[in-house]
Formats: sequence, structure tokens, C-alpha cells
Amino acid sequence: MNSISPKHPRFKSLIIREKIIHNFNNGSVVNHGLIAHGRGEAFDYLIGETTIPPTINAIKVAAITLLNSQNPVISVNGNVAALVPNEIVKLSNILNCKIEINLFHQSKTRVKIISDLLYKSGAKEILGLKSLINIPEIFSNRSQVDPEGIFKADTVLVPLEDGDRVQTLVKMGKKVIVIDLNPLSRSSKYATISIIDNVVRAFPLLLSYIKQFKNNTNKIELNEFHNSHNIKLCLKYINKNLSQKFTKYNFKI
Amino acid sequence: MNSISPKHPRFKSLIIREKIIHNFNNGSVVNHGLIAHGRGEAFDYLIGETTIPPTINAIKVAAITLLNSQNPVISVNGNVAALVPNEIVKLSNILNCKIEINLFHQSKTRVKIISDLLYKSGAKEILGLKSLINIPEIFSNRSQVDPEGIFKADTVLVPLEDGDRVQTLVKMGKKVIVIDLNPLSRSSKYATISIIDNVVRAFPLLLSYIKQFKNNTNKIELNEFHNSHNIKLCLKYINKNLSQKFTKYNFKI
Repeated sequence: MNSISPKHPRFKSLIIREKIIHNFNNGSVVNHGLIAHGRGEAFDYLIGETTIPPTINAIKVAAITLLNSQNPVISVNGNVAALVPNEIVKLSNILNCKIEINLFHQSKTRVKIISDLLYKSGAKEILGLKSLINIPEIFSNRSQVDPEGIFKADTVLVPLEDGDRVQTLVKMGKKVIVIDLNPLSRSSKYATISIIDNVVRAFPLLLSYIKQFKNNTNKIELNEFHNSHNIKLCLKYINKNLSQKFTKYNFKI
Repeated sequence: MNSISPKHPRFKSLIIREKIIHNFNNGSVVNHGLIAHGRGEAFDYLIGETTIPPTINAIKVAAITLLNSQNPVISVNGNVAALVPNEIVKLSNILNCKIEINLFHQSKTRVKIISDLLYKSGAKEILGLKSLINIPEIFSNRSQVDPEGIFKADTVLVPLEDGDRVQTLVKMGKKVIVIDLNPLSRSSKYATISIIDNVVRAFPLLLSYIKQFKNNTNKIELNEFHNSHNIKLCLKYINKNLSQKFTKYNFKI
């Protein structure tokens, strides 16, 4: 990776970018994944590159939902494996839930590279490598799922996803938790719970709330959660942030 | 390139994306260029994937500025050469102005690939290939410029640029016209005229106004143009568009 000075005003964002490019060079991220990362960078900039209050609320609700699920599964693609491999494994361990690789741009080589990356981070078992069955309503390689994994799951955590699959999984009766920086994406729209955040911030925070709530889910008091209302609050933050950035630039008008 | 159905709701955006990926595979676009394209996609989505009225105004002012310049130069990088090679050549012909390749991620191979692409589109002469001199205030490969091109130019058109160089060129007394989808980028902030638009829409429109104004620049009446005020109008469009997209989705709140 290139050396980037910690003093650079875009240091954090550049470090994440280099991690994605490093994994592109290793074969776990595809060229479309680089473009998707760029879209994420733009939306992250717009929310202020911070976990905004409505998202903290969504993460708390996601933590409780995952703790109350019988059979939760974490769905992993190339970008998320590149950015938070250790956190995926930690989440799987604390929830005792399965990890399944599910790719839009699929190849045996890529699945192998991504599973190696996760095994290296401590994963015990990874699904999505063999004995897959087809969900005919999904019109892409993502339709291939493990019968003991995503197919059977009651809750699926799908970071950095595509809208088609989110919609289908919800129609199948599953709870779908999305982590997506675009509050207007179809994934965000159709998910049961949309976490509008960067995975590098959302995963550690989700882990921390799960640890905190693990032994007392019944005692947690949360305000009523409506996903679409929460997304609206995120949009309000973007609007506010745009105005503030403009003022900060001190344009002469 | 993949075949994308014209019925796909994201058809136009996907065609542009495939063009960038095609040129990535050919070597004119680099991996950082793919990420930059993704950022552009997000901002284009936010302005509604259309040329908004304040931008039409900026394009008109840019057309007149280019027509009134003694020595305008079009600065070209990998992404812009990939997306609008024919339009770059047409603009060069109609203005009788120079084309100069100027890259952040520079290599002789890349410069050759990009110049071949432009020659294939009909370019007569391309600068940036040899006999370059250094602008010490620019701390990247972009500091290498042609003494008869960017160094001498009174006006530089820099589509898809980085802020450092825009700022330096302006400090050198040049008029800098930027085409950038991010209204809050340093390029947009420091430029003399910022065209907040996708190059695939901005270039044809700029060409059309130049043709229209070519023989009567003195007769054109324009409202007074303040770049920072114009950017503010673009931001207002984004805010408005965000609200409209939200309403269109018909979320239940």
C-alpha cells in the first residue's frame, strides 16, 4: 500500500481506499467494486464521514434483531471482506451465526480468495462454496445460496448489497439488515433495517452494542423504529451537512 | 462491453460505467479512476442526472470565455479521454486550441494509450508527450506540463481534475474552467468557472454554445456570473432533488 501521511486532510478515507485497491490487486474486489466504493466515498462525504444519530438508532435495533434471531447469517461480498474481515469473524463468533459468501461477479477463484481472507481472520466455517441451491426470483449469480445458510436464515445481514436481492429476501419473509451509505438505494428502501453508514464504522459499533445487549435484550428500551422514517432523518442530515460544508468554505457570494 | 437492456432503469449510467471499465481494461483508466468515476456516479444521481439550470449558465460563460481566450488548452486525463474522446477533438478543432495529456498516475505507456485514443478520434496534435517543464508548486506528476501548452495558456479547461492543480493554475493567473460533478470539491471551489455536470452531457452542450456564439461573442447578454453563487444554486438543486426522490419513493412515514 502507498504511504499516506496521517496529516493529510483525507487520511482516513484514503487509507480505506488503499485497502480496497490492495484487495482489488489481490483479486477479492472486482472493477465494479472499485466504482461502488467511489459511490460510497461520495455518500460518506455527504453524511460527514461520521455515524449520524439516526444510524446509531438503526444499529441498536439491528443488534437486538440479530440477538433475537434463531438463525442469522452474514452475507459477504468482495468489498466487505476487504474492509472488515476481522469484524465479520468477531460478529459471527459472538452471535454464533454463519458466514456466507455471495457474489454478483462470481468465480470459483474469487470465492476461494475471499474465503482464504476470512479463514485467515479466524473464521471457522464459511458457506457459499459448494452445494448451492437457486432462488429463481433473483436474476443474477446472487441467486445461488446455501440451503443451510441464507436460504434457511430468518435474518440476513447484507452489507454493501444490491437492491434486487434485498427485495427478494424480504419477500421470502426474512428480516434483512442492510449497511449502505446511499440512503436512497433500493437496498436501503427495501431493507427491514437500513444502517446508513460506512462498514468500517458500522461493524465495530454493531459489535459493541451486541456485546452490551447480549445478556439483557428484554431490558432494552428503544423508541419505536420505522425504517423509512429513519432514512428520512438521514436525508435531513445530508441536507444540513451540505449547507454547513458550504458555509465552512466561506464562499463570497 | 456487456450488453445492457435499454429498458434498464439505470441504462444511461450503466453504459457510461461500461465505457469506463472498457477503457480500464485497455489501460487508459487506472484503478483510482474507477473509484473517482463511482464518486461521480453518486453526485450525478444527486443532481438528477441532468444538466441543471445553473450549470447551463456556467457552460454559456465557459463558452464565451474560451472564445475570448488567446491561447486556450484542453487538459485531458484517462477518464475524460475514455468518456468523450470525439468531443475533445471537436472542441479543439472549433476553438483551434491545443490538447494536452496531463495525468496524476503517469506512465509512458498510459500517455501513449490515451494519445492513440485521441489520434483515433481525429486529433491532429497532442501535447504532454515530450519536452515537459515543471511547475514546482504542484506536488504530483501533474506538475509536468508542456511549455507551449498548459504553461503558456491563458485559459485551461480541466475536466475531472484535482484541486491542488486547479488552485495553482489560478494562482498563475490563468482562467480555469472545471467540469466536476462534486460541487464541494476543491476543484469546484477554486475554479474560475465550475461546470457541475457529467462530462458526457457538458461537452456536447459546451460545443453547441460555442458554435452558437462563435461569430457574435460581443452580442451575448449574460447575467453577471459569480462562481461561488452558482455553486450554491447547484447545492440548492441537490437538496431539492433529495427531497423529491424521497417523496417519489413514497415511503410510509
